[in-house]
Amino acid sequence: MASADPVFDLHRGGKMTVASTVPLRSREDLSLAYTPGVARVCEAIAERPELAADYTWTGNAVAVVTDGSAVLGLGNIGPRAAMPVMEGKAILFKQFGGVDAVPICLDTQDVDEIIRVVTALAPSFGGINLEDISAPRCFEIERRLDEALPIPVFHDDQHGTAIVTLAALRNAATLLGRDLGDLRVVISGAGAAGVAVTRMLIAGGVRADRVVVCDSKGILHQGRSGLGGAKDELAALTNRVRLTGGIENALDGADVLIGVSGGTIDESAVARMAPGGIVFALANPTPEVHPDVAARYAAVVATGRSDYPNQINNVLAFPGVFRGALEARARTITDAMKVAAADAIAGVVTGSLTADAIVPSPLDPRVAPAVAAAVAAAAV
Amino acid sequence: MASADPVFDLHRGGKMTVASTVPLRSREDLSLAYTPGVARVCEAIAERPELAADYTWTGNAVAVVTDGSAVLGLGNIGPRAAMPVMEGKAILFKQFGGVDAVPICLDTQDVDEIIRVVTALAPSFGGINLEDISAPRCFEIERRLDEALPIPVFHDDQHGTAIVTLAALRNAATLLGRDLGDLRVVISGAGAAGVAVTRMLIAGGVRADRVVVCDSKGILHQGRSGLGGAKDELAALTNRVRLTGGIENALDGADVLIGVSGGTIDESAVARMAPGGIVFALANPTPEVHPDVAARYAAVVATGRSDYPNQINNVLAFPGVFRGALEARARTITDAMKVAAADAIAGVVTGSLTADAIVPSPLDPRVAPAVAAAVAAAAV
Repeated sequence: MASADPVFDLHRGGKMTVASTVPLRSREDLSLAYTPGVARVCEAIAERPELAADYTWTGNAVAVVTDGSAVLGLGNIGPRAAMPVMEGKAILFKQFGGVDAVPICLDTQDVDEIIRVVTALAPSFGGINLEDISAPRCFEIERRLDEALPIPVFHDDQHGTAIVTLAALRNAATLLGRDLGDLRVVISGAGAAGVAVTRMLIAGGVRADRVVVCDSKGILHQGRSGLGGAKDELAALTNRVRLTGGIENALDGADVLIGVSGGTIDESAVARMAPGGIVFALANPTPEVHPDVAARYAAVVATGRSDYPNQINNVLAFPGVFRGALEARARTITDAMKVAAADAIAGVVTGSLTADAIVPSPLDPRVAPAVAAAVAAAAV
Repeated sequence: MASADPVFDLHRGGKMTVASTVPLRSREDLSLAYTPGVARVCEAIAERPELAADYTWTGNAVAVVTDGSAVLGLGNIGPRAAMPVMEGKAILFKQFGGVDAVPICLDTQDVDEIIRVVTALAPSFGGINLEDISAPRCFEIERRLDEALPIPVFHDDQHGTAIVTLAALRNAATLLGRDLGDLRVVISGAGAAGVAVTRMLIAGGVRADRVVVCDSKGILHQGRSGLGGAKDELAALTNRVRLTGGIENALDGADVLIGVSGGTIDESAVARMAPGGIVFALANPTPEVHPDVAARYAAVVATGRSDYPNQINNVLAFPGVFRGALEARARTITDAMKVAAADAIAGVVTGSLTADAIVPSPLDPRVAPAVAAAVAAAAV
């Protein structure tokens, strides 16, 4: 924390601010933006609540909500220590999607309490982005909030990752002349991202019976005891041939490995994949397989890191997804909207595919508008 | 809501936005403001939570929280319809105090639930401004939150009004060569503002035994049945001579009338005041006594309206109060800090007092810095 440390220097005072979009220089300005003029806008919304989206910032405002239970790779560091990440998320929302995002770090990790609090907050926002909430709590929180609220609820660690992964897999398959429905896919990791990636790939065209999901104890299969919740559902949905054993068994002859586990995978296991395949090792900062190692066995390699090609970065998805959902006044974000987002991300670079450029750069300004338009269209 | 209506035109899309204060143009920018750099700031705060005020925006961020139960003079219009007022408040916070305020409109009017929700939100903010919450619920909500939270909690309808009223009364007394301790004061209204104004005036030098408070049923006195809560306390604190009857009895020979009731007061009652006194008729938009009528009996008249002289406007207080409290890292806002704020507001115009200028203009840029400095000093 030396004063010359550029990270701490940058963070001093935080990374965001609010600003007025209307003039406040004269008594007349005050009487329009505040009392007495504002009362007429209040009365109009009291009569027709849907006008709030037109005449308040809620039509463009999203809460970035965390309980600090699973922050980056740091784990359960609590709400105060999570704030720098949520502020970072908020400014990315603005930069790429023009969305006004407000970081909300909650001083509770109780599922029912989080649902109560976010439900109470909801009139203040046009959408809820859940962030860095640990599995399996995140699944129930998202499901119950999405059912309860008339605005979109989106757990980015699940669906942001899943959307960008589907986009990358689509382009990788195109590049290799493969059809998604023919690929044998192994997903390593059955936490928030693993569950969502599995569902998203299936929604996007991968065949469920050709997917095998592994957690730290090995392959998920029906009959494996003590799974519970989302893992039970995955075991039922995937692995119809009832493979058992460790990830090395799953990878035997597989075309695709997607790591969203935070663990490591031995080179000897990767070596058992079918030749010319695809490895996405997304754990950050340490990929499950080093990309140089993966490249010995796979034709296309992606990571979550910015210092290797093909960075699978959620920022390609969430700003445009919410931009599109807000513009469409969507009440929820459907699978169709997520698949549309993935297709839009992929589409930005489809015409210029190489093995080192299956996804756009996180800074590519074409992405969010394309995603927003696709999501809004799919919402109708 | 015709398209040519300037109020609705101004409100289209809302009145506020968020913005990044750091660059996000390059991969290096992203790696400092977001992953992987941000993780080091998170770890530092996890170790030393007090660093959150230095390295996140929470050190400058205030939640403007309402349940929509008592919005302006509109009453219980709910959280969605309250949002335009809360946005207006937020941009005034920014304009005058440089405070980043976020409007939070809650979908609950249950006291315990509001306390739970705001407590859960608290790590996201450096202060809580409660707004437009109906009495007597507002008293319990503020008291319990202030006890529970390590950050300032301030119900502006109470204390903002009270601070500016004390400032105005100080200058009016100075102008008339009167001492606060000698004045016989009648306060009409025993809601949120009436209770706070009474307490603030006493904290500022008015003698409790020379104050009489009236509600819609007449004078508060010990022995009047069915008062309850804050009104019981006021009856015990004030009116030592046990006056009874209606406001006309209270006003008989009084030097000061402060209306914070929203009702009306007959001219015949005002006529019973001692000559050369003071009338603050603060109900908005319709003062309890028309200022032209009040001027027949009083030497100094103030209202809550911008189209008459001496506007008692909370914006003179809340931006500077929170600016000062945030800078001092105050855990609560004490009576001493509120009195200091009132003195600072009064002090801005003490050298140029006339009966038409006992308080600064709401747009006077000298006010908030003076209030902030006084509040910060009083917080130590």
